[in-house]
Amino acid sequence: MLQGHQSWKFENRPVIKATATVVGPDEAMGPLVDDFDIVHGDLSLKQDSWEKAEKMLMEEAAKLAIENAGITKEDVQFYVGGDLMNQIISNGFAARTLSIPYIGIFGACSTSMEGLAISSMIVNSGSAKYAMAGTCSHNCTAEKQFRYPTEYGSQKPPTAQYTVTGAGAAVVSRHGKGPVVTGATIGRVVDMGIKDPFNMGAAMAPAAVDTITAHFRDFQREPGYYDLIVTGDLAKVGYDIASELLEKHKIPMHQTTYKDCGMMIYDYDKQSVQVQAGGSGCGCSATVTYGHIMKKLRKGELKRVLVVATGALHSPLSFQQGESIPCIAHAVAIESGEE
Amino acid sequence: MLQGHQSWKFENRPVIKATATVVGPDEAMGPLVDDFDIVHGDLSLKQDSWEKAEKMLMEEAAKLAIENAGITKEDVQFYVGGDLMNQIISNGFAARTLSIPYIGIFGACSTSMEGLAISSMIVNSGSAKYAMAGTCSHNCTAEKQFRYPTEYGSQKPPTAQYTVTGAGAAVVSRHGKGPVVTGATIGRVVDMGIKDPFNMGAAMAPAAVDTITAHFRDFQREPGYYDLIVTGDLAKVGYDIASELLEKHKIPMHQTTYKDCGMMIYDYDKQSVQVQAGGSGCGCSATVTYGHIMKKLRKGELKRVLVVATGALHSPLSFQQGESIPCIAHAVAIESGEE
Repeated sequence: MLQGHQSWKFENRPVIKATATVVGPDEAMGPLVDDFDIVHGDLSLKQDSWEKAEKMLMEEAAKLAIENAGITKEDVQFYVGGDLMNQIISNGFAARTLSIPYIGIFGACSTSMEGLAISSMIVNSGSAKYAMAGTCSHNCTAEKQFRYPTEYGSQKPPTAQYTVTGAGAAVVSRHGKGPVVTGATIGRVVDMGIKDPFNMGAAMAPAAVDTITAHFRDFQREPGYYDLIVTGDLAKVGYDIASELLEKHKIPMHQTTYKDCGMMIYDYDKQSVQVQAGGSGCGCSATVTYGHIMKKLRKGELKRVLVVATGALHSPLSFQQGESIPCIAHAVAIESGEE
Repeated sequence: MLQGHQSWKFENRPVIKATATVVGPDEAMGPLVDDFDIVHGDLSLKQDSWEKAEKMLMEEAAKLAIENAGITKEDVQFYVGGDLMNQIISNGFAARTLSIPYIGIFGACSTSMEGLAISSMIVNSGSAKYAMAGTCSHNCTAEKQFRYPTEYGSQKPPTAQYTVTGAGAAVVSRHGKGPVVTGATIGRVVDMGIKDPFNMGAAMAPAAVDTITAHFRDFQREPGYYDLIVTGDLAKVGYDIASELLEKHKIPMHQTTYKDCGMMIYDYDKQSVQVQAGGSGCGCSATVTYGHIMKKLRKGELKRVLVVATGALHSPLSFQQGESIPCIAHAVAIESGEE
């Protein structure tokens, strides 16, 4: 049901019955490696194109999430999925394989929580027994599509982010055990005029702050309600800007722990030359949330988490035409389920 | 609430409080010209790029729908929008202008009914007082992105479709007067192996039939329940194939009138050299439904309509890589509101 102006409170407590995550070799070198279900040692997944490899990441995560939930794909009534590819083809093709009624969504890297919010709303309202949310990204498909041909080997500034090769899926259920999705805040588009696609963290930070502010207003809460607030994927540059803006807005973030998925997934000491400011892509917040954070919620090491997934809604064409980068963030509250 | 396996019944009767449609010069030459709110005489809308023109179509439709509903944009809690552009930039940028919390969606030409289904579900479940659905397309942006540069002047086979320049928006409300959204069926991806992007009608027809069949199964209805069943946008080639498949599946379509938005929007006698098999694009089913059909529902000339919007989920890249075209269709039932 509606909570405040732009938020939903899920009073029927939809449960994340199971999740699954799949990552590539770069993510396997990071500190969260043990939290992922499937780790691929090569970027191609033995496919003859990177696009097919990305689709396979999504299919593997979706199938494993369904298996982990102890159900069949026929039990899942709606699959809510999206990715960064033009015409979100990774999910279109994965939905063809899955043959589950499909709701295609796009919110750039915020797609992960957009999908979880919609799936939870569907289940909460009694519009499905089971719905599944999924997103994926692949470093090489994103480089090719958004930036330069990968073979070109172009150098990047330290503000740039590194697209995560990974996919995550979550089965949301009306009943059962597991972390509960208790609410969501749908973001507005915020654009502060930044035009540099190699500095998306700076572009997205104000959108994250806008949604966090709206979430606390709508739920009449303070950050201390949560053990952890995690943005995804601002990376180092965006995280610092968001922290500063939250302080300016007098949001008492000192009450909680504030982290960013783009900073959590890689090992800075060893990987910073490659990943620059940190991770990005639909797969980043999805794998960190459905892998790492979900495990901690299940173990009771975290009780209440707010995941604020951020997305840059530009295209290569809008950049070429001189437009700035419109950004958005969607927040989902996940609680351990122990009342 | 859930109705059957892949459908929703909207028991709280969300109302389409207002709609608005905007079209370009080619659509103004068609038989539905009097049903559109704003008609542009030139394709560029005086913008310096076609992409900006497309964004403007969307903004005009959204603003006018809100005005027609007698509310302000601050009253609209969620805007559910999408289009054909890479990273759905027309809607991302329109959502920036509107500043309404934004749910980005993509289902190619089926996006129109995907958006209306989700908006209605949000309102029906008490998750918003007002939600708005919107989609747009522009002939020149679509040609440029999906096919050849427009300046190239490439010829097309008679199976090809012509992307509609137009936008449509609908404000869905918990209360008030107007046609009621009574149900929706979310489609599965269907792919019969067709690889020719100049024959999308043939590719999409099986998806339309799959969703129509699912709709009648889930609601335990027959076509005679509706005065009009309208697919969008199969155009002439796809319409004939769908009619044949429906007959094979023994769906008694003779009980009702079956039409297609892609055939309704243009005047075949005068425009067939230009539009080939008929219209397509996110703007086609949106303008026909929110313009023409909505007027007839309001006047009581139609009582019950099922709109089955179809979409081809391929990308230029998936076509180049030899993939076939995955297709989908989403159906929404709209009734005149007189019980």
